[in-house]
Amino acid sequence: MSVQPLRIGVIGAGTVGREVVRALLDRSPRLQPADGAPLVLAGVAVRNVERAIAAGVPEELLTDAPAHLVASDEIDVLVELAGGDEPARTLIAAALGTGKAVVTANKHVVAHHGAELERIAREAESPLRFEAAVAGGVPVLGPLALDLAANRVARVRGIVNGTTNYMLTAMAREGREYADVLEDAQARGYAEADPTADVEGLDAVNKLVILARLVFGHWLAPEAIGNRPGTTRGEAGSPGITGVTADDVAALAAEGRTIRLLATARLAEDGAIEASVVPTALPGGSAFGRCDGVLNRIEVDAAPVGRVAFEGPGAGGAATSSAVLGDLVAVARGQGSTWAGLPAATARSRIEVRPVAGECVAAPSGACYPVGD
Amino acid sequence: MSVQPLRIGVIGAGTVGREVVRALLDRSPRLQPADGAPLVLAGVAVRNVERAIAAGVPEELLTDAPAHLVASDEIDVLVELAGGDEPARTLIAAALGTGKAVVTANKHVVAHHGAELERIAREAESPLRFEAAVAGGVPVLGPLALDLAANRVARVRGIVNGTTNYMLTAMAREGREYADVLEDAQARGYAEADPTADVEGLDAVNKLVILARLVFGHWLAPEAIGNRPGTTRGEAGSPGITGVTADDVAALAAEGRTIRLLATARLAEDGAIEASVVPTALPGGSAFGRCDGVLNRIEVDAAPVGRVAFEGPGAGGAATSSAVLGDLVAVARGQGSTWAGLPAATARSRIEVRPVAGECVAAPSGACYPVGD
Repeated sequence: MSVQPLRIGVIGAGTVGREVVRALLDRSPRLQPADGAPLVLAGVAVRNVERAIAAGVPEELLTDAPAHLVASDEIDVLVELAGGDEPARTLIAAALGTGKAVVTANKHVVAHHGAELERIAREAESPLRFEAAVAGGVPVLGPLALDLAANRVARVRGIVNGTTNYMLTAMAREGREYADVLEDAQARGYAEADPTADVEGLDAVNKLVILARLVFGHWLAPEAIGNRPGTTRGEAGSPGITGVTADDVAALAAEGRTIRLLATARLAEDGAIEASVVPTALPGGSAFGRCDGVLNRIEVDAAPVGRVAFEGPGAGGAATSSAVLGDLVAVARGQGSTWAGLPAATARSRIEVRPVAGECVAAPSGACYPVGD
Repeated sequence: MSVQPLRIGVIGAGTVGREVVRALLDRSPRLQPADGAPLVLAGVAVRNVERAIAAGVPEELLTDAPAHLVASDEIDVLVELAGGDEPARTLIAAALGTGKAVVTANKHVVAHHGAELERIAREAESPLRFEAAVAGGVPVLGPLALDLAANRVARVRGIVNGTTNYMLTAMAREGREYADVLEDAQARGYAEADPTADVEGLDAVNKLVILARLVFGHWLAPEAIGNRPGTTRGEAGSPGITGVTADDVAALAAEGRTIRLLATARLAEDGAIEASVVPTALPGGSAFGRCDGVLNRIEVDAAPVGRVAFEGPGAGGAATSSAVLGDLVAVARGQGSTWAGLPAATARSRIEVRPVAGECVAAPSGACYPVGD
């Protein structure tokens, strides 16, 4: 048992970072595991140091240079919460390469550079953890890698993007058009000024890549995951939920169906992985059909367990900080990477990836939405 | 990394034991964690050796004396799946005391002798794991102890007994009486010949004791957990669901309420723990109200995460074997006990335990069912 504290450097003090920093400053007994090192905040890198001081972060912890935290001998774990591609990717890779543990909520970096980061982490024997990257505070990756370790997963499905689920729920309840609910979601802070990543399904694609790594042992290329429903003319429709109309929602509702942006990855009989993130026509009375608003839900079909589901808040600073802090406790307890216990990921080129095949239901807009159960 | 295989002795070859033995004999790669010892079946103790041979268990692994497995130098982990109080309690205690790891699905023994077994396990530094004791194959205890480690849990609630949930679902759907659906559940194998433990809520009480240990750090005395709803005359009603009538179900349904046997433990403001397992009037449209048949659902209200839920098959040999095998993988990977990372349980005598307080709704039978949200 180590008694040396684990010195933590946090990059980013946005909605999640603020909560993580506050929890670490509070020094809750929950952040001092009985069989691991206590967690101690040792540095915070932010864009605006003055604002962070005003928000109560002690000045001596602050820097505006994240690379300083990566290079510092006085930091054991890097918590990357800045988001985006660069410099996050390089900061994470450099920290892992120099033997630091890394905890991140950055689904884009993990999904797009996961194979590279896993290789670096394994070579350097540095843990990389990313529970917060999928479904915010809902424990999903941990249970998949640990509790369900003995299972063979046939399929994983999920509503993993709160923004689009909020929008689809509002369209169904209030009969409003896509553009209208998008504006509303932006006003409420559920959608960003540039909503592309959410509404085109790219955020959900990233989360599906991460789920698929844990259940199928491969890092799928995000661009290989279909994010467009078909059309009645056999073409590819608009990406994500951008083509869903109020008429589509109403017409499907009349048949007892609810449209949800469903991320699906399953193992086909020929060994290929079928993966899609598309608006899907689900039975209104099904658990997915009833999953409303910003709630996330992930279902896993596996043997021998059967179907298990995980539900909860998929976004928000407080909820997501739960996963980041849980990962920090895991690092302090020597639990290794999120994939610990699983074999190293197999090379991407050896696996065929194709969209999920199946029947679809025609809608007034001309889209043909896949039918889900 | 250990390369010595972990030699497993299984006690009991009932519905769960059969599945565990079969999985171990199949030597799936999933049972050989990348960073731990491979799992190898080394012994099986059964009542009827002839029957086990006929079922395909190799004769050289079989014994009718479970104590032989506990005493054997050639067994590293004991898997106790015989159930009941004695001799399971003594076999588990003896195995832990001699340095063996123990994995069990025995909710009765863990709930009734948890404090004693935890003390023995800690003194001997032997891991004790019991994920299968709550909600079968649904990962709940692991996520509570690991992924949600940084949270302060305010309340845990669950539908954790499939038998009674099947019965209440059938009563509501078909308007049938308690005695009638009990007979049906027995015929289908969902209820035992002596259904007392299920219908009086004692099985759910055991599961609540185990959940409360992980979230509140105390082993509650099972007999301190209320299992009777109140009555309109202010008395204690019949235990568990035994007093629920078809009229009660219909009257509450008319008000949009669904009766479910809900296990609840919450932290009161004065530091007491309120804990009950009683038929509860839930909104028909709530996730608990819609949790039908033999499905289990557990909800955790915690800070900072908010509300997270776990759902899936709470019983059945295959589903439950998933949790047993997951615990075996965890032992092989050196993960310690189910409570690893948490402080040792505090002494029972120091915590006040009382039934959950709150409003109730009067029903035709004279019962007054607590109102849930």
